[in-house]
Amino acid sequence: MQLAIIGMGRMGANIARRLMRGGHGVVVYDRKPQMVDTLKQEGATGAGSLEEVAGKLPQPRIFWVMLPAGAPTESTVEALLHLASPGDIIIDGGNTFYKDDVRRAGIAAKKEVSYVDVGTSGGVWGLERGYCMMIGGEKAAVDLLDPIFDALAPGLGTIPRTPGRLAQTGEDSRAEKGYIHAGPPGAGHFVKMVHNGIEYGLMQAYAEGFDVLSGRSSDTLPADVRFDLNLTDIAEVWRRGSVISSWLLDLSAAALAKDQMLTDFSGRVADSGEGHWTVEAAMEEAIPVHVLSAALFARYRSRVEGTFGDKLLSAMRFGFGGHVEIPQ
Amino acid sequence: MQLAIIGMGRMGANIARRLMRGGHGVVVYDRKPQMVDTLKQEGATGAGSLEEVAGKLPQPRIFWVMLPAGAPTESTVEALLHLASPGDIIIDGGNTFYKDDVRRAGIAAKKEVSYVDVGTSGGVWGLERGYCMMIGGEKAAVDLLDPIFDALAPGLGTIPRTPGRLAQTGEDSRAEKGYIHAGPPGAGHFVKMVHNGIEYGLMQAYAEGFDVLSGRSSDTLPADVRFDLNLTDIAEVWRRGSVISSWLLDLSAAALAKDQMLTDFSGRVADSGEGHWTVEAAMEEAIPVHVLSAALFARYRSRVEGTFGDKLLSAMRFGFGGHVEIPQ
Amino acid sequence: MQLAIIGMGRMGANIARRLMRGGHGVVVYDRKPQMVDTLKQEGATGAGSLEEVAGKLPQPRIFWVMLPAGAPTESTVEALLHLASPGDIIIDGGNTFYKDDVRRAGIAAKKEVSYVDVGTSGGVWGLERGYCMMIGGEKAAVDLLDPIFDALAPGLGTIPRTPGRLAQTGEDSRAEKGYIHAGPPGAGHFVKMVHNGIEYGLMQAYAEGFDVLSGRSSDTLPADVRFDLNLTDIAEVWRRGSVISSWLLDLSAAALAKDQMLTDFSGRVADSGEGHWTVEAAMEEAIPVHVLSAALFARYRSRVEGTFGDKLLSAMRFGFGGHVEIPQ
Amino acid sequence: MQLAIIGMGRMGANIARRLMRGGHGVVVYDRKPQMVDTLKQEGATGAGSLEEVAGKLPQPRIFWVMLPAGAPTESTVEALLHLASPGDIIIDGGNTFYKDDVRRAGIAAKKEVSYVDVGTSGGVWGLERGYCMMIGGEKAAVDLLDPIFDALAPGLGTIPRTPGRLAQTGEDSRAEKGYIHAGPPGAGHFVKMVHNGIEYGLMQAYAEGFDVLSGRSSDTLPADVRFDLNLTDIAEVWRRGSVISSWLLDLSAAALAKDQMLTDFSGRVADSGEGHWTVEAAMEEAIPVHVLSAALFARYRSRVEGTFGDKLLSAMRFGFGGHVEIPQ
Repeated sequence: MQLAIIGMGRMGANIARRLMRGGHGVVVYDRKPQMVDTLKQEGATGAGSLEEVAGKLPQPRIFWVMLPAGAPTESTVEALLHLASPGDIIIDGGNTFYKDDVRRAGIAAKKEVSYVDVGTSGGVWGLERGYCMMIGGEKAAVDLLDPIFDALAPGLGTIPRTPGRLAQTGEDSRAEKGYIHAGPPGAGHFVKMVHNGIEYGLMQAYAEGFDVLSGRSSDTLPADVRFDLNLTDIAEVWRRGSVISSWLLDLSAAALAKDQMLTDFSGRVADSGEGHWTVEAAMEEAIPVHVLSAALFARYRSRVEGTFGDKLLSAMRFGFGGHVEIPQ
Repeated sequence: MQLAIIGMGRMGANIARRLMRGGHGVVVYDRKPQMVDTLKQEGATGAGSLEEVAGKLPQPRIFWVMLPAGAPTESTVEALLHLASPGDIIIDGGNTFYKDDVRRAGIAAKKEVSYVDVGTSGGVWGLERGYCMMIGGEKAAVDLLDPIFDALAPGLGTIPRTPGRLAQTGEDSRAEKGYIHAGPPGAGHFVKMVHNGIEYGLMQAYAEGFDVLSGRSSDTLPADVRFDLNLTDIAEVWRRGSVISSWLLDLSAAALAKDQMLTDFSGRVADSGEGHWTVEAAMEEAIPVHVLSAALFARYRSRVEGTFGDKLLSAMRFGFGGHVEIPQ
Repeated sequence: MQLAIIGMGRMGANIARRLMRGGHGVVVYDRKPQMVDTLKQEGATGAGSLEEVAGKLPQPRIFWVMLPAGAPTESTVEALLHLASPGDIIIDGGNTFYKDDVRRAGIAAKKEVSYVDVGTSGGVWGLERGYCMMIGGEKAAVDLLDPIFDALAPGLGTIPRTPGRLAQTGEDSRAEKGYIHAGPPGAGHFVKMVHNGIEYGLMQAYAEGFDVLSGRSSDTLPADVRFDLNLTDIAEVWRRGSVISSWLLDLSAAALAKDQMLTDFSGRVADSGEGHWTVEAAMEEAIPVHVLSAALFARYRSRVEGTFGDKLLSAMRFGFGGHVEIPQ
Repeated sequence: MQLAIIGMGRMGANIARRLMRGGHGVVVYDRKPQMVDTLKQEGATGAGSLEEVAGKLPQPRIFWVMLPAGAPTESTVEALLHLASPGDIIIDGGNTFYKDDVRRAGIAAKKEVSYVDVGTSGGVWGLERGYCMMIGGEKAAVDLLDPIFDALAPGLGTIPRTPGRLAQTGEDSRAEKGYIHAGPPGAGHFVKMVHNGIEYGLMQAYAEGFDVLSGRSSDTLPADVRFDLNLTDIAEVWRRGSVISSWLLDLSAAALAKDQMLTDFSGRVADSGEGHWTVEAAMEEAIPVHVLSAALFARYRSRVEGTFGDKLLSAMRFGFGGHVEIPQ
């Protein structure tokens, strides 16, 4: 198929590459001509503007927007809606808030343009491993795009098949290849959002566990229950037959194998919206998410020193007990 | 009555003072003779050793130990058990772990010595306001000591009486005066421990709330939902008719009235055992204590920068997404 | 002064009553004529429609809307904006989301109508104790309304004054009387929202503490650390000189004095928006709120049995360990 | 090698089987003769008592105890210590609390008997996949036992090797085969304990995420952000290239493929000690473990209905707001 990829960041460029490897024709665009040139040398058709992109695509045109969520994606989708003709499809492959998808799909529908949201996991490894995709949109559009998703997905590969798959009605046979049609517009990014919410929780569980291991060598502990543990080896052994083996553990083991002290990292951990939105979605549904929220808050806390709240704790302690906790 | 107070720290000295004001005779002892001298000038009988303490008391002798929990209290109780005669009473008024009380009371019982544990709240304000006391021990000993507890307690005072008090069987009429016989040895410190566990939770609730108020002036927020709030006024107004009025809020309001920025405080917040023990007790009972534990953990977190776990989060993020969070 | 109170629920009716006691003239309106009649008998002027309300007020007209947040308040404010003339003031005294205030105040400003948001704490006790009020709005309007707020507020009363009040520049002398002008439109409800967020945290801290006390009598514990505690007495004694005394503890003590088992209560606990919004606000500011969120989630959890997530835990346990957790 | 396996539960029997497959000679014992008979038919040597076990082993004798932690293991280790000669080795392969290992190893050392603790992960899948083992004990004993651990471990298998392994000094080359010598006695079970603590956190992260997905079909949500998601497909697609792929997700996908509603599970989730001990260890080290504790508490909560604390919340709400939450 022919389609355009708009946004030649790490994700966009690799998606273009994987599609070309799969035999698809790709028109690429980026605000920075340099990125377009790079992809042109790899076989893509370059474009210098969105108008030019539109001109180089056959109808129905397929625009895959791969830009940072928020303003960059919003303005690009808006511009494409002006350029698009009935039957065209706009795909948002970024980390968009699902309610923005719902709103945009409504606007697009009035122009008879299809809006498809694709939550994409796989990060920098996707080019090689394939992208895990959660797709929202109308069935006709999603079906039409199937060859594209099929090329991007990991495929069956060597991952063992789940016993009992497809025994229930309504299951999606594409899931085993690494993509699903999750539901109407917004559903793709909703599922991806929860994926990231879970990711935060999993990461924090490992982080706390390794913290407990690391803290066991503290000389404030009695000598007979103090252990000087090799975290690199522990991460490695847990990869092999333990209940907690996972890809995140593989990455942890690799990082620790490189440097057990992780001295290259600041410990100030960013968050990118999905963790926040997952907690918000949970609150809309009145679902308790102690772990997902705690994981998010731990990241907030990692980025500050001496919160105001902590000072107030000290002030109260001073008030009732004369405990002195002043800076030295 | 006549009794000895062992340990002339802030708490011990003020307890001795309040007892003398109440007409009781007090023998005081401390490792530091200077503290003993101070109290002698205020009317107490001084003693230079535990043996001397024992010699100066009528029988049955009453020893009130008011020392830091752990080794200091343990060794003193042990020494007193050697000095004590059948019928004597040893009171531990410190912040002892209740299981230590249970163990010590068993040893004391074999010598026909009574062991009474008194959890004491009120901090530096107790001399003036009176001490709130939660008492564990055998009924006979606790009853015998009643004049002492009565003198230390706040009494009915001006606090409005709870409607319906004493309508149920088994209620303790002493509660309205500010002390209760909570149960057998250990029960006093158990109830005090939970009191402190709750205290941590309450404090953290205020801390987080004021953090949210404080953060509302951040220029990362859209201008129309950004507020520059006066935290001093807010603490004050909440003291007056709001649902969240409390003594801890009074202390917060006083601290903020002195300095809205709380610049005198480091934000590194200590914890003193009871929070930890409360979570442990909850786990023994399989009771979920999300708030009490979170309050404790927030204090741990306030005392470190850049945890190992946080670095591991960054390392994983780098692993799957190429996110760079390195020190600069 | 003359003003209208729209909404004769428990809160609205009592606010009207307290204003009349303070010498103000009140026009009352409610969809249910019966409530209007009741207040008429107590001295208010009744009205049968919003138009009639408007007609019975002198200019500038003051409309105090006291309705459930969301649709009822929204539609009433909208209707009043149609009726209002330049200079009129609309007060929203309900539990409105502060961003709705910001939006409405913008619309009102275009009509030269002032919009004032008043977060009100004090619940069913306000008629007697006075209402604690957190006010958002333009200074001119808030100043004009001062006699009304003064009449509703608790006043200095018998609550001890905070040492050092008004030593800092910019403090609000009204705080000691129980109301503050917190900031521009929305700031009043923002502060009230955080108040409720803290309230949830405080309540959950007490709830968990009493749960730990209650669970201590479990016969799964070793006999020597098992205590059968009298929760009624413990709540009472903590009211008297302890660090955790508060109004919420007073209410707990009263409930327990009535029935130590609290058999009248289902344990399914509602939440009313502010807890949720506080967590949302915290996330906008990247502030960790472990306690405030945990308190909210505990309420969600109290209202369901056997969550899907819990079943998934059981399913995983069965998967890796053959642990059987099936319904019986 | 020759060794005895004491305890023919699911774990013990499969360990015996895997050792026999690896060419080792196994003497088996269980209180229930039936289990011993089963293993005898598979090639093991049976024994009717611990004395008989000791008599059938060459010196130095190796006893692998595979019993429930607590009393069963304690009494068996005690009995073996009476039977053992200098040079013998007692292995505890159960889920023992690491402080019990430290204590027992001290007693064993006085008899010149080695005590080795082996934390074993892999559950019912270990026979097939091999067991991931974390070993504590003196180097000489652990080295002597190497052929046994080698036979039980998964070995290199098909799991991709971690880039950069063994570049740092002090790394354990056995880790890649699925076992490590973690440190002195107790260190093995300590690492296994933290493994389980992490496991609870990971499981709860998935549980909460799937709860949020499941709750999205609630008709209390606005129709355009309500999705009816297929959880079976979502679990499957996340196995394929997503950041959150893991063995626990594989198990979840299999459970959901069998029954999307998980109707076979009660949602009352047990915990087995390690989660509790991990939180305790963290508190000893003053490490915040918001996620690991929340995961544990969620299990506690899953096993009760209408906690006392929840009722107290309702009682307070009734107290300040007249909110009625009574059973119907």
